[in-house]
Amino acid sequence: MRVNSAARLSPVCAMVFVFAVGVHAQQKPCVTASKFGPNDQIGNLNYVTPAKTLAASKLITKGKAYRLGIETNKNTPAYGTRTFSITVLQPGQAGGASLGPTKTTYNDDIIAGWVGIGSQIDGLGHAGIDNLYFNCNKAADFTMPDGLKKLGIENVPAVATRGVLLDMAGYFNTDVVKEGTAFNRAEIEGAMKRQGIQSLEKGDVVLFYTGWQRLLGKDNKRFISVNPGLGREGARYLASLEVAMVGADTANFEVIPFENGAGIYEVHQILLALNGIHILENMNTEELVKDQAWEFLFTLGPARITGGVQAFVNPIAIK
Amino acid sequence: MRVNSAARLSPVCAMVFVFAVGVHAQQKPCVTASKFGPNDQIGNLNYVTPAKTLAASKLITKGKAYRLGIETNKNTPAYGTRTFSITVLQPGQAGGASLGPTKTTYNDDIIAGWVGIGSQIDGLGHAGIDNLYFNCNKAADFTMPDGLKKLGIENVPAVATRGVLLDMAGYFNTDVVKEGTAFNRAEIEGAMKRQGIQSLEKGDVVLFYTGWQRLLGKDNKRFISVNPGLGREGARYLASLEVAMVGADTANFEVIPFENGAGIYEVHQILLALNGIHILENMNTEELVKDQAWEFLFTLGPARITGGVQAFVNPIAIK
Amino acid sequence: MRVNSAARLSPVCAMVFVFAVGVHAQQKPCVTASKFGPNDQIGNLNYVTPAKTLAASKLITKGKAYRLGIETNKNTPAYGTRTFSITVLQPGQAGGASLGPTKTTYNDDIIAGWVGIGSQIDGLGHAGIDNLYFNCNKAADFTMPDGLKKLGIENVPAVATRGVLLDMAGYFNTDVVKEGTAFNRAEIEGAMKRQGIQSLEKGDVVLFYTGWQRLLGKDNKRFISVNPGLGREGARYLASLEVAMVGADTANFEVIPFENGAGIYEVHQILLALNGIHILENMNTEELVKDQAWEFLFTLGPARITGGVQAFVNPIAIK
Amino acid sequence: MRVNSAARLSPVCAMVFVFAVGVHAQQKPCVTASKFGPNDQIGNLNYVTPAKTLAASKLITKGKAYRLGIETNKNTPAYGTRTFSITVLQPGQAGGASLGPTKTTYNDDIIAGWVGIGSQIDGLGHAGIDNLYFNCNKAADFTMPDGLKKLGIENVPAVATRGVLLDMAGYFNTDVVKEGTAFNRAEIEGAMKRQGIQSLEKGDVVLFYTGWQRLLGKDNKRFISVNPGLGREGARYLASLEVAMVGADTANFEVIPFENGAGIYEVHQILLALNGIHILENMNTEELVKDQAWEFLFTLGPARITGGVQAFVNPIAIK
Repeated sequence: MRVNSAARLSPVCAMVFVFAVGVHAQQKPCVTASKFGPNDQIGNLNYVTPAKTLAASKLITKGKAYRLGIETNKNTPAYGTRTFSITVLQPGQAGGASLGPTKTTYNDDIIAGWVGIGSQIDGLGHAGIDNLYFNCNKAADFTMPDGLKKLGIENVPAVATRGVLLDMAGYFNTDVVKEGTAFNRAEIEGAMKRQGIQSLEKGDVVLFYTGWQRLLGKDNKRFISVNPGLGREGARYLASLEVAMVGADTANFEVIPFENGAGIYEVHQILLALNGIHILENMNTEELVKDQAWEFLFTLGPARITGGVQAFVNPIAIK
Repeated sequence: MRVNSAARLSPVCAMVFVFAVGVHAQQKPCVTASKFGPNDQIGNLNYVTPAKTLAASKLITKGKAYRLGIETNKNTPAYGTRTFSITVLQPGQAGGASLGPTKTTYNDDIIAGWVGIGSQIDGLGHAGIDNLYFNCNKAADFTMPDGLKKLGIENVPAVATRGVLLDMAGYFNTDVVKEGTAFNRAEIEGAMKRQGIQSLEKGDVVLFYTGWQRLLGKDNKRFISVNPGLGREGARYLASLEVAMVGADTANFEVIPFENGAGIYEVHQILLALNGIHILENMNTEELVKDQAWEFLFTLGPARITGGVQAFVNPIAIK
Repeated sequence: MRVNSAARLSPVCAMVFVFAVGVHAQQKPCVTASKFGPNDQIGNLNYVTPAKTLAASKLITKGKAYRLGIETNKNTPAYGTRTFSITVLQPGQAGGASLGPTKTTYNDDIIAGWVGIGSQIDGLGHAGIDNLYFNCNKAADFTMPDGLKKLGIENVPAVATRGVLLDMAGYFNTDVVKEGTAFNRAEIEGAMKRQGIQSLEKGDVVLFYTGWQRLLGKDNKRFISVNPGLGREGARYLASLEVAMVGADTANFEVIPFENGAGIYEVHQILLALNGIHILENMNTEELVKDQAWEFLFTLGPARITGGVQAFVNPIAIK
Repeated sequence: MRVNSAARLSPVCAMVFVFAVGVHAQQKPCVTASKFGPNDQIGNLNYVTPAKTLAASKLITKGKAYRLGIETNKNTPAYGTRTFSITVLQPGQAGGASLGPTKTTYNDDIIAGWVGIGSQIDGLGHAGIDNLYFNCNKAADFTMPDGLKKLGIENVPAVATRGVLLDMAGYFNTDVVKEGTAFNRAEIEGAMKRQGIQSLEKGDVVLFYTGWQRLLGKDNKRFISVNPGLGREGARYLASLEVAMVGADTANFEVIPFENGAGIYEVHQILLALNGIHILENMNTEELVKDQAWEFLFTLGPARITGGVQAFVNPIAIK
């Protein structure tokens, strides 16, 4: 159906139509309109309710807490022209001077760097379709050089919800899933079945484990430029399940090389712009896999930098 | 006792002796030695065990999750010469260019700023005594301009533990506790009694509510330069209870003006350098107070910036 | 004539026609084509030849050298969201450590700031017309987030040429010329006559003195948001004389509020994009005026930051 | 004589004595006292007088102007942990938006980087002796994290003076002088004789050409870590001639490996701290050598960043 309609329509309309699958385009103010209303800035994170959090807390059986963040520093592979550095200094203590009768000395630090490096969350203002972002926000209206005026990362609510880890390496019976391997509905359901996960639910955080972190420091070029990951059909499938966020242990999250006929980072567009689903990158889930901790309480509070597009993160999973 | 001994000893020895109250100095490699051994880098966070986390998770009754972080931006009041800014840009999209067949557009952000601004965690490398930091780490040995080689913030483990909120504003029967009001053992115990909190335990995160955030944006000069807070005796008392971390809704955490005879940020020295207790600043606990949620699961994963001294944080409390 | 033609043509053509006054548009590859050929990146700086420099050196009679740069720091008023800071530290010398047998200690500094603050040169890649920049460079082709690939400030040749100072404050018989006062041909010629300047020549650097620096630190809001300055007719007039660069003692250089019917920073477009004439801002010419040094050797070497759009500058005038 | 005295004195006194050669230590407030008085901040740049500038202008015979600065970018080899990056963006023009009726578009740039990279000037606050800097300025007194309070680079006066280029590669009859080759009085005088330079005078800028820039981009590791250059005796010799500034086409300026018995960057200490002679690094004098332009007008205006320690520079030489 889609192809036929696309053939009859002009290119612009075809693209709109393709993106509008499953939605009655003419009933929405725009293709990226939020189901939560015109003022919504957090998309499916609206599904993380107290009931959801309470239920997720029952998943804790051992009390083991896991850091999902990797380290970020000047050697962390980064996309494009992104750079990162920190500087540590001892203000006002030149020459070894200390302060006061108890000889106080202190270190301070300064960050100068692109946020999209290492373990990060992509805010809903990160990726758009021809400058149209989530919930009908147009770039010209909400992006300023000193911060986003809408969809800024400071809007992310307290995240405490059910986390589900899909062990794709296990599903493909390998240590590291090959780049270009797309996870779509079949793979997702296959992994769930293998791991005994009954369902993916509204408000979940779904993380994919691929083993890709094993390339870090060994083949940084490959690490950053390609990886296995979610495909477009898989993205639409997860969106239909109304999960709150998705993530992976890769830098790019979605499958690269992109699928045949896919746009550039089209999965980011589907998740962020069309469905209000935040994305997490470089999630280190190695230990959760080792413990076979497939379902857990997932918590995350990104630093609330006003107008930020992304944030450095280190979510805590508790099993 | 302390005063008499101080009078008889030389100034240097006096300081060492004063700091060594309660510890047999000659049995430790140095006054800041960790009870967890010479390789320890996380201090009392070692007490956040799975048992502790599991028990803390039982405190969740409603599933309500709270963000403890305030927003950080260029207008956030900051100590000394600290500055902060973010820049948002659209790389490679000058002139409205988009990428690929699905017209991908995206925003990226860059942070240029001192980390010690807004809601933050002070790492154990932040404050020292005459260049001696936690666990006998000497500044010359572990501080480099591109990051700390020991005690870096990337070492902070997954924090999920019992959080306790002491409502000092309620204790003093005011909206905003006056600057210079020191919280020592009597005040801490008095607040606990008033709130019905039975005990403070090993591995807890203890947060003080003072109402001080109400000054933010109204009297930034006063907000940043003074505040009520923990005093030295209170710091030693909490250290004796082996809490894991402490925090407050103020920028400086400890009482300022400093107590009579106190050193400059001496409480920071007592907690960070002498006792391996991390400090949290600008914790927004207003809503927890409103809900009278005194005990809760406290979670925190600071972004793992290698060699960082502090980190921007946004802990999640769950009740 | 222009208005009639504009009325008859479509809006796009009208704009092209307006900009093409004095040029046979159809003979150039584009309206911003350089008369120096398709590979040119420096515009009228091509006119600064050895003969020009030699002649200019003869203007030196006293040997007095003047700094034209003002100080730049975090308090310098800046356009829009621009910020600036420097950090000074003593790397590897925490605790007063020095290096080696002669106890070497040193300070280092770090700049984090927008370049368009304080005394600056606008490169030919700074302002364009609908993303078309000097010499037919389209934004999408030459701007990358890590630097301009054409028209970068590193291309500016060694500048040593005749400098001419037009004392507009003297011309208007005031200390500080009022904002919104436009300098067009009549004012330029009037000032030249008053000062006894015979001519403006190919390859000159023409600087305007208005007294506007006197507002710095006293009324920064007014200082940065408005000023007297070159108007569009004046810009075209100077372009017809083929001067190499222009400058003023104001932050914005061109007259603000803009002239009736003028575009936003249209004079910048006329000079930079259409005529390859670099612009200097915040030129402190107070002392040259005091000495009535109207013609002098003007020298400038902007720091050669690869791909830079602008540069912090401090030209040296020698009389 | 020095060795004998050193053997008889305590280590501290020995160092002071060694540094005090030629000066009656007890008559100066401290070993780094300026001959220009207690308020001096520019050292031998005081010798660049109008008479000096006027005389230097007579050296111009052809009018050829040379850029002495090399390009600085993220690939420029840098000492220690120094990093550099620029970011180019189009503020407020997301989605291709332009401003106003003439469709103004513009690029802006941001620098985030250590200043001591590429062609630079070392200010008198850059290197010291055990935290004692030029003219008795103690680190604790004048260094603040947001800038030097004395000796900041903004104090550098307009520099227009006689420049002299010593062709050391020619002197050693090689393309690139070997690392570790020290230029002392014999080599300096030998080069002058070979080139027919009669004298070095008070207020001169003396530049050394070694060919070292040929390593840039070919062997960056060697380029940054070692080089030929001025030795201690040569430094004292030039100081005795009261030159204003010195420079070289190397990154470190002074000879590395350091001479036997020399301190770490001891030549920097001798020039900057003891004699108030600024240092220029990475001066590209290749073309001056090609033209055998040994004496010329040297001009320099470092950007006047308040409190800066160093500055990115691009001096202009005119022959």
